[in-house]
Amino acid sequence: MADQKLLVVPLGGVGEFGMNITALRCGDDIIVIDAGMMFPDDELMGVDIVTPDLTYLVQNKQYVRALILTHGHEDHIGSVPFFLSEINVPVYGTAFSLALVERRLEEHEIRDQAELRTVKPRDKLVIGPFQIEFIHVTHSIVSAVALAITTPVGVVIHTGDFKVDPTPTDNELFDLHTLAEYGKRGVTLLLSDSTNADRPGYSESERAVRPRLEELLSRSPRRVLISCFSSSIHRLQQVIDLSQQAGRKVALVGRSMINVTEIAHSLGLLEIPDGILVRPSDVMQMRPDKVTVLISGTQGEPLSALARVSVNNHKHVAVEPGDTVALSSRIIPGNEKLIFRMIDHLERRGADVQYGTMKPPLHVSGHGSSEELRLVLNLVRPRYFVPIHGEYRQLSKHARLAEHLRHAGLEETFVMESGQVLELDRHGARKAGQVPVGRICIDSGTVDEVVEDIVIRDRRHLSEDGIVIPIIAVSRHTGRSETLPEVVSRGFVSDEDGSSDLLRQARQVVARTLESSSQEERTDHGVIKEKVRADLKRYIVKQTSRRPLIMPVILDV
Amino acid sequence: MADQKLLVVPLGGVGEFGMNITALRCGDDIIVIDAGMMFPDDELMGVDIVTPDLTYLVQNKQYVRALILTHGHEDHIGSVPFFLSEINVPVYGTAFSLALVERRLEEHEIRDQAELRTVKPRDKLVIGPFQIEFIHVTHSIVSAVALAITTPVGVVIHTGDFKVDPTPTDNELFDLHTLAEYGKRGVTLLLSDSTNADRPGYSESERAVRPRLEELLSRSPRRVLISCFSSSIHRLQQVIDLSQQAGRKVALVGRSMINVTEIAHSLGLLEIPDGILVRPSDVMQMRPDKVTVLISGTQGEPLSALARVSVNNHKHVAVEPGDTVALSSRIIPGNEKLIFRMIDHLERRGADVQYGTMKPPLHVSGHGSSEELRLVLNLVRPRYFVPIHGEYRQLSKHARLAEHLRHAGLEETFVMESGQVLELDRHGARKAGQVPVGRICIDSGTVDEVVEDIVIRDRRHLSEDGIVIPIIAVSRHTGRSETLPEVVSRGFVSDEDGSSDLLRQARQVVARTLESSSQEERTDHGVIKEKVRADLKRYIVKQTSRRPLIMPVILDV
Repeated sequence: MADQKLLVVPLGGVGEFGMNITALRCGDDIIVIDAGMMFPDDELMGVDIVTPDLTYLVQNKQYVRALILTHGHEDHIGSVPFFLSEINVPVYGTAFSLALVERRLEEHEIRDQAELRTVKPRDKLVIGPFQIEFIHVTHSIVSAVALAITTPVGVVIHTGDFKVDPTPTDNELFDLHTLAEYGKRGVTLLLSDSTNADRPGYSESERAVRPRLEELLSRSPRRVLISCFSSSIHRLQQVIDLSQQAGRKVALVGRSMINVTEIAHSLGLLEIPDGILVRPSDVMQMRPDKVTVLISGTQGEPLSALARVSVNNHKHVAVEPGDTVALSSRIIPGNEKLIFRMIDHLERRGADVQYGTMKPPLHVSGHGSSEELRLVLNLVRPRYFVPIHGEYRQLSKHARLAEHLRHAGLEETFVMESGQVLELDRHGARKAGQVPVGRICIDSGTVDEVVEDIVIRDRRHLSEDGIVIPIIAVSRHTGRSETLPEVVSRGFVSDEDGSSDLLRQARQVVARTLESSSQEERTDHGVIKEKVRADLKRYIVKQTSRRPLIMPVILDV
Repeated sequence: MADQKLLVVPLGGVGEFGMNITALRCGDDIIVIDAGMMFPDDELMGVDIVTPDLTYLVQNKQYVRALILTHGHEDHIGSVPFFLSEINVPVYGTAFSLALVERRLEEHEIRDQAELRTVKPRDKLVIGPFQIEFIHVTHSIVSAVALAITTPVGVVIHTGDFKVDPTPTDNELFDLHTLAEYGKRGVTLLLSDSTNADRPGYSESERAVRPRLEELLSRSPRRVLISCFSSSIHRLQQVIDLSQQAGRKVALVGRSMINVTEIAHSLGLLEIPDGILVRPSDVMQMRPDKVTVLISGTQGEPLSALARVSVNNHKHVAVEPGDTVALSSRIIPGNEKLIFRMIDHLERRGADVQYGTMKPPLHVSGHGSSEELRLVLNLVRPRYFVPIHGEYRQLSKHARLAEHLRHAGLEETFVMESGQVLELDRHGARKAGQVPVGRICIDSGTVDEVVEDIVIRDRRHLSEDGIVIPIIAVSRHTGRSETLPEVVSRGFVSDEDGSSDLLRQARQVVARTLESSSQEERTDHGVIKEKVRADLKRYIVKQTSRRPLIMPVILDV
């Protein structure tokens, strides 16, 4: 034991936003904490989700013993199906996290092969040389845990994602006691959530949104549509309770909103009073002041329920003048344009859209700000510290927040980036090389109701299927495309004679997509890009069975 | 006079962000208020600035009498050179606004032809049927005015941009008295700034940033770099004063920072104590705790001074561990990625970067929030109201803020979009048709030191010079481009034999640009796109004298 070594290998989420995954290796035993995805930003347009490169784990497949999940957000569990199809090991997590995983596995038709093992806070688990204790933390999702992992070289604490909410709506307090206990006995390494390290002070309690929601639901003269993440069970509970109080029925709209509330309800995490739910198809028949619509699509995703409502293209729900729409969510950096355009559409239809910062707040963050991060640092008093979950600036701010612990036993803070290896032994800790990491782009069906034949695509093999770029000139003011769209390609079909049948047909496909869209959709780059991409993909897959990357370029003229 | 008509024609800035310009027409007389530009967003990558389509004014050239400027921000004066080269009429504005215009005219070598006429607040001016009074307002830039325009159909108030700052740093209060006077006598139409209509409450006074700046400058252990808009003279004055108090000299870095401070100083609007300025080339030789660097580039513009510093590519200034960098500015939506990457680069070099929301604030907005907008609405009590300067959601929020005036004489609010015409006569006001509007893309030199042979390009004539799309696959983790870049084009050169010499050479040009860039630059899409665009443009212009639109596509692999 004396010369045992522990390797800590963040494979994602360190120096980048999302896609959290960290491996701990001790001799021939590896455990993996979380397997998240990231949403592609504009620059990755042409793919649906992005997952971490698992090469390091696949190469050491025989040593991987377990996948352990801290909570059920997509940036922590979104890659589990891809992970398990490569490395089929038991998955540990709380009941809610595993239920969300189960849903994804069913979609990928691999539920049967997976071994899901439910744990509770305070449970202890021994896996090879690792003893793992689960510690309840407060976060925007229910059933989130931190991990205390006792290893041959000492205790490692991994916080998962957290805030220190003094008044959680479910009254389940952050288990600071257990954390303090470990801190007292001595912690070798702390890995802690840095998402809000660049925010001063404290994050507000989840309970702080109650007055704003109450005002919205009791004072609004007509229909109220509230959009939040479907996994924000605390938020949903408050909306449901306050709707009941205001005499409103509640409709759940959007696939994820319906699925996740069913799961939370069946696990006893969400109380739904009898008779309060109404079907989406009934919304427009009800008295407008007697209904609340809980709807997915806070980030303006072009095919989400709320985005469809905003361009009057939803099967069941429409907004009418005097309706109120509230975005009870943060604007994820990079999504501003999509979100603001959706808001503009909703305002054009006469809705009063509530969003952004206000007092009392319409949204509070699920991640701890500087003083909460300091509190956890002070309780744990680690010998070594690695900030995780954040881009470089957040990690670096978090490192600075730990500076004062130099006088309380902190020997060194390592600001790492994904793929860097931290090695710990009885002599101490040090950076020790690099393993392969990267981003794998996943190309799924584009229609959100149908998850069909998902293809994993590695951008490094782009050359295999090539790239297709539809170029569309749209007049911003008339919303018309004045000329036939261009379609250029590389590495896909030979365009040598400038008259390839396929590309000529592709131009017609794009033209038809434009014609069949409303002016509102045509002047909205986000929507039109997504529609063109979906239609063109369907056409190309059908004609060629190949899946080139499709990156529409829209020019305002 | 009895059957005279007034047409109000916003040609930009209404339903879109930036590019503010509004025409007022009465019979055969037209005056134009402001002629701004907008910065192109990602989707317009491939051009440098965007100006309004002036077709309506050019067609009615013989009736245009004057261009009147409310203040010197680029979104109000940035198109003046292009305006005057089409329609050469006298330009009226305060001394500072005109000095900023003069600088742009000199760059375009058309200063001699222009007739600039300086006005002061309370000045009155008669132009045809219009009598115009200039009213001092508080804003982030000095010497901003609102306009009270007496016309045959009544008084029109145009606020320009404003906040109602109760304690402006120069003690020049918003002239609420004059505004109130007009309100009392009766105002037919109010056009008012909507930029912050979606923010509740009051914007903080410019003076509110003083405690934060004071702490930064007196407590930071080493060099402090502060970035703000060069035209924020109030902010610069505070930084200079507090630097002196903290025993720091000040270096001005970045072309616009140097030019604008010279102008403000020469007009007596900026006090620069003797001996406080040092040259940028001296910064690195001075004791780090004895110098403040005022530097341009708050928005992470890839070729700006601060962006260059962030990748250690500036001629004179570098950041070193322990330095402090403060972004005393807002993050303009759409610029998040560029800004956050710049911050990451600076943090990697060991700088402590201060940005975002904090108390006391590091930045305050120059635009009034809801309650300030209400105050102006209540003072003016117009018969008709048109919210201007904002995207649809801000205009629509602003319209809602005026609802209560229905009981105080407000007959109707018109939420308009650029190009829509409002017609007023003795019977009332109504929307009356549409004039041509649009966005003209300006393709200037890409090197910020040299403004060379500017070409006005109308996207509608894209077909003339075509489009060139360099496609570059960069490994995010190694920063290497593994394969030779692809270059595809349409409507530019014939690529029929797939081996066009020009495009083959173009691939080499792009490859050389990549090779000559640092890894830091290669993994930063913003920087690498801009460098590829600049180098490829230079090559193509030289070889062909044509100017295709160049839109680099970077793929993370």
